[in-house]
Parts: sequence; C-alpha cells; structure tokens
Amino acid sequence: MRATTIHAPFDMRVADVPDPVVRNPGDAVVRVLRSCICGSDLWAYRGESARRAGQRIGHEFLGIVEETGAEVTGVGRGDLVVAPFMWSDGVCDYCREGLTTSCEHGGFWGSVGSDGGQGEAVRVPFADATLVALPAEAASDDRLLAALLTLSDVMGTGHHAALGAGARAGVTVAVVGDGAVGLCGVLAAKRLGADRIIALGRHEARTDIARRFGATDVVAERGDAAVDAVRELTRGQGAHAVVEAVGTEQSMRTAVSITRDGGAIGFVGVPHGSGTGLDLSVMFDRNIALRGGVAPVRTYIPELLPDVLDGTIDPSPVFDLTVGLEGVPDGYKAMDERTALKVMVAN
Amino acid sequence: MRATTIHAPFDMRVADVPDPVVRNPGDAVVRVLRSCICGSDLWAYRGESARRAGQRIGHEFLGIVEETGAEVTGVGRGDLVVAPFMWSDGVCDYCREGLTTSCEHGGFWGSVGSDGGQGEAVRVPFADATLVALPAEAASDDRLLAALLTLSDVMGTGHHAALGAGARAGVTVAVVGDGAVGLCGVLAAKRLGADRIIALGRHEARTDIARRFGATDVVAERGDAAVDAVRELTRGQGAHAVVEAVGTEQSMRTAVSITRDGGAIGFVGVPHGSGTGLDLSVMFDRNIALRGGVAPVRTYIPELLPDVLDGTIDPSPVFDLTVGLEGVPDGYKAMDERTALKVMVAN
Repeated sequence: MRATTIHAPFDMRVADVPDPVVRNPGDAVVRVLRSCICGSDLWAYRGESARRAGQRIGHEFLGIVEETGAEVTGVGRGDLVVAPFMWSDGVCDYCREGLTTSCEHGGFWGSVGSDGGQGEAVRVPFADATLVALPAEAASDDRLLAALLTLSDVMGTGHHAALGAGARAGVTVAVVGDGAVGLCGVLAAKRLGADRIIALGRHEARTDIARRFGATDVVAERGDAAVDAVRELTRGQGAHAVVEAVGTEQSMRTAVSITRDGGAIGFVGVPHGSGTGLDLSVMFDRNIALRGGVAPVRTYIPELLPDVLDGTIDPSPVFDLTVGLEGVPDGYKAMDERTALKVMVAN
Repeated sequence: MRATTIHAPFDMRVADVPDPVVRNPGDAVVRVLRSCICGSDLWAYRGESARRAGQRIGHEFLGIVEETGAEVTGVGRGDLVVAPFMWSDGVCDYCREGLTTSCEHGGFWGSVGSDGGQGEAVRVPFADATLVALPAEAASDDRLLAALLTLSDVMGTGHHAALGAGARAGVTVAVVGDGAVGLCGVLAAKRLGADRIIALGRHEARTDIARRFGATDVVAERGDAAVDAVRELTRGQGAHAVVEAVGTEQSMRTAVSITRDGGAIGFVGVPHGSGTGLDLSVMFDRNIALRGGVAPVRTYIPELLPDVLDGTIDPSPVFDLTVGLEGVPDGYKAMDERTALKVMVAN
C-alpha cells in the first residue's frame, strides 16, 4: 500500500510500504477514508522532534474495518470507525479511569514499527478499546466525515483544554492559539457554557472561524499588547479560564499573564519551550492553576459524538484544504507556511 | 512598644518602635499574645528575599483587641482574635470569592509601613474582614492557643496544599517537605479523608509528628531514591495527590516525579527555584496538574476552627520551641539551623 513516510526535516514522501495485517487477536485493519495533518506533526516536519528516516506519520484517521482478529467483538468488517490519536487497551488502571493516554499498553500511530494515519490502511491494536463505531450513513456525507475526523484529536484536545481551564457557565475563557486545537477550544468552551470567549489571533480567516465557533471577542494584538487588551476586556482582571494551545515560551507567558487570579490554564500545546514561559512566582502569588497535557480523546469521543452527529457542534470548518494521499507533502508545506489552517487527506 | 526588626541577613533585633494606633475607621489594634516564626521568614533572614533595614517581620499572630476604629463592628475591645497572614477588605471581587490573598486592598504584615506579628501589638487594617474572633476561654489554654495560632498560616496553608493536590477519600497523598506546613499538609490530607499518606522526611522528630498527624508511611530517602521508594509503595504508579511544601528546584522535581499520571501537585512552598524543577514535558505526557499558591487562609479559618476547638485536629505539635519576644533572634537561629521545627513567641 501507499503511506506517508518522513525521511528528514521537510522531506515527506508517499511511498510503497507493506500492507498491514492482523498480528494479534485484538487487532483490526482499518482502510483509511480520511486522515489529516496535525499542527503537532509540524514539529517532526521541521526537525524539532526527532524521527527515524522512513518512519510513518499521521495520528488522526477514520475509515472502514477491513479485517479483525479472533478476539475482536466490538467492531466488525465494513464498520465505519474513528480512531483516537493513541491506541489503548481499555482494561488497565488508567484506561478504566479514563486516562487512556497513560495506558500501560498504549502507543502512538506512526511510532517506530506502527502504521501512521496518513496512509491507505492502519493496523489497530486493541481494536475493541481503541476504535469507536460511527453510523454507516456518515460515510457518504463529506461535511459530517470532516467533523467526525476531528474527534480523533483536535476536537477532543480542545475539549481537554477547556475542561482543564475550567470553562463553564459564568466564566470568561481566553484562548491562546488560533490553530485547529485553539479553535476547537473555543467550540468546546462554548459547548461547556462559557459566557464570554476571547480568541487571540491575527489571521482574519481563523478568527472568523473562532467567531463562528462562539468567540465573543477577538484580540489581534500580540505579547504585552495582547495582555493589555484582554485585561481591558475583563475589568483589569484577566480570564478565569485560559486555553494554551501552542506550546511555546511566548504563548505560555501570554497565558499566565491573561489568567485571572484564582483561575486556571488548560494546556494542550505540546511543550516546545513553554516551560520557560511558566513564571511560577506569578502563578504562586495569583493562585493560577495549570491542568492539561496530552488529551485522552478516546474517553471524550462517546460524549462528543452525539453532539457532532446532531449538529450541536460542527468542528469541520477547521479544515480549509483537502489533498489526496499523494498530495500529503504539499499539505505539510501549506500548513508549515500557514497558507492552510488544517489539511484533510481524502483517500 | 518592642517589636522585631530585620536589618541585614542574619541580623534580627528586638527594638523600640512606635506604638500602633488606629489610623483608619476600619482599623483595630491587637495586643499580641502569641506569634511565631515561619519557614518563609527564613528567606528574609538568609537574605534570599530583600528587606529594607529596620523593616518589621512576622505574619502569624493572635491576641486581644485593644482598640477599634469607629466603623469596626465585628470585633471589640477585649476579644481574643486570630489574624491570617494577610489582611483583606472582605468586599472586593476576590474576597467575596474567597481568594482573600488577591484582595484589591490587601497586604502583608511586616511589609514596609506596616506592623509585624513578632512584636507587642499590631495595627490591623479592615479588622472586621481580617480578624476572626475566638472563644475567650482559649486564652488560658496554652495548648489550644498554640493550635489556634496555626490557623494564621501553616494549618490553612497545609489545607490549601491538600485541596490543591486533590486529597480526598480513596487517594494516596505524598507530602514533600517536613516543615510545619508539610506536617500540616499531612494533617489536612487526613482530615480530608485520604486513605494513605506518605510523608517524605529524614528527621525522626518530624516524621514522628507526621505519623501522629496521619502519615501511614515515611520515606527517608532523598532524590531518586525517594522517588523509587514512593513508586514502590504505590505499585509503580506514584501518588494521586502530592503536596509540595518547600519551594526549591529539588523538591519540585521530586514532587513531579512521584505524582501519578492524572494526579495533581498542590504547591505552597514559596518558589525559590522550584520553577526550574517543573518539567512541563513530563507533566504534559502524564497529565499532572499544578494547583496552589499563597493560601487564602482567612477563608479557611471558619471551616478549620471548629475542628481545632473540638480537638478533631490538633496542629499544636508543630511548635517545638517557645521563646519570649526578646528571644526572637535566637528563635531564628534555631530554625535556620533546623534545631527547631517551628518557634512560638509567647509575649
């Protein structure tokens, strides 16, 4: 089959690789219908996260079950399914508590020896625990497929950030980061009942989506000016709940500065310098909490899925470019150069 | 009157200073019965926190109201009262939410221009909001006075840490720091229902108190060995709830390392390097939360006071040395050299 491989920074290829097969009785093989490129894939693309030459990539996909191992009972051949960005066994202490990302037997798509989502098919370990079945009729609805695909990562990650930040009725939420996760953080905050949502971002195409998703205010300034603008919108106090969806020193510094005393930062931006932006003395003096991390999106899918299916939330606008599998390298280039917000791969 | 003043690192004096008087209609003057020396006072003593020569010091005290301004109605002359370690106005947004440490008109005892607790008397701003009345009969009960004095800081701060860490029934709590705050963290965790409490500490006199306060296990190792020991006690997973009551790089590093995936660190050690010990990548991968800061102990006094009065909790054993006011410099020396755990000053 064909699948995306990464060879060096900025060197993405679509290559012939072995077809996936069922290896363990809990495995399934899923034929990918839709996958996408994640902002976090760009860390590998840019060489800031190490990859072995030829390693697969892509951790967001949905598709049709093609084959299942002898022990798989929850999904069967022909089912439309979505996969979260990590597999998990569903039975360890952490899985039972919902922290599937800490699963004792969990792993990442695209790690060495495993398939990546940006390919024709994927071997899925622990298929019963990992995959979530979707209504078959969704397969013929492009808009709905796009919305469902976000459940594999960005929508669940935005939800995790909003929960960590404490988004709820009666509070003001601010979102640092205008990528797909930040925008889904806006949508999640709105869904959780936040009264006021301030989106920080300079790109009008993105802030327009933020407004569609529920942002009541947009702050286009950066750095100190952004902090001043948020404080002006919040009687000088800052936001109760702040989503940090970037992971850099500057974004974390901004997040701390715009959080109201006693508030919380929900952080989901993969840390690339953000630790340095965390001023613990300021957080101490102002009782600012930090909660978040890699999002257990598998746990959130059953909660978010009905709202996506009935249209209560529609995260599909985060995709603004669609490529075929052979176009994946171009998709990376577009996201790296910020000419695309998020790229969908339609097989 | 006589009061403690700080002149340079390691240069504490007891000097003649002006008698406090009511300046504003909301003020009270409190004649101090008991005060104490805090671990955080040692940062000033050692020159690690800057002080102006002659500045007052001491932020924990209880005593008898001597005089009140025209607008004070909640406490009156002759009342036995305890003061939290900051004053607060009781009416601003933050005070109404219980975050009295972020009060818009709040301040610290011993800051420039204000009295400190380690003296004969203190002018208390916003007396109605700041002071909490105690039963008069407590004044003649030395043990109870000592226990009540901890409500001014260490007991409330330990409670804040335990809450931040998420101590509750069914969880394992670990406490980093065997000072008075760490020990009160043990007591608070026990009070909140924690099943298992692991105290980290090497000094037997202190770990004995930890056991009296509810610790079920004591880990005497330090650094990596301490981490291994806690993991061994917790099936390799770590503690759900970790109290960080020191504030150094090493203590925070230990706290992160012994927190279970999905758990939380309640941090109340005044940051002196602890930011560097916070490995955000580890916290991200393992979904470790950080909550805490300067404790709004004023808010906690009404909740903790009944339990102190009826003996449900007795934090008084944190005091192991009592000096008179003129003995305060010796008290600092004893705490700095760790020959005393916590020094009470009996006027």
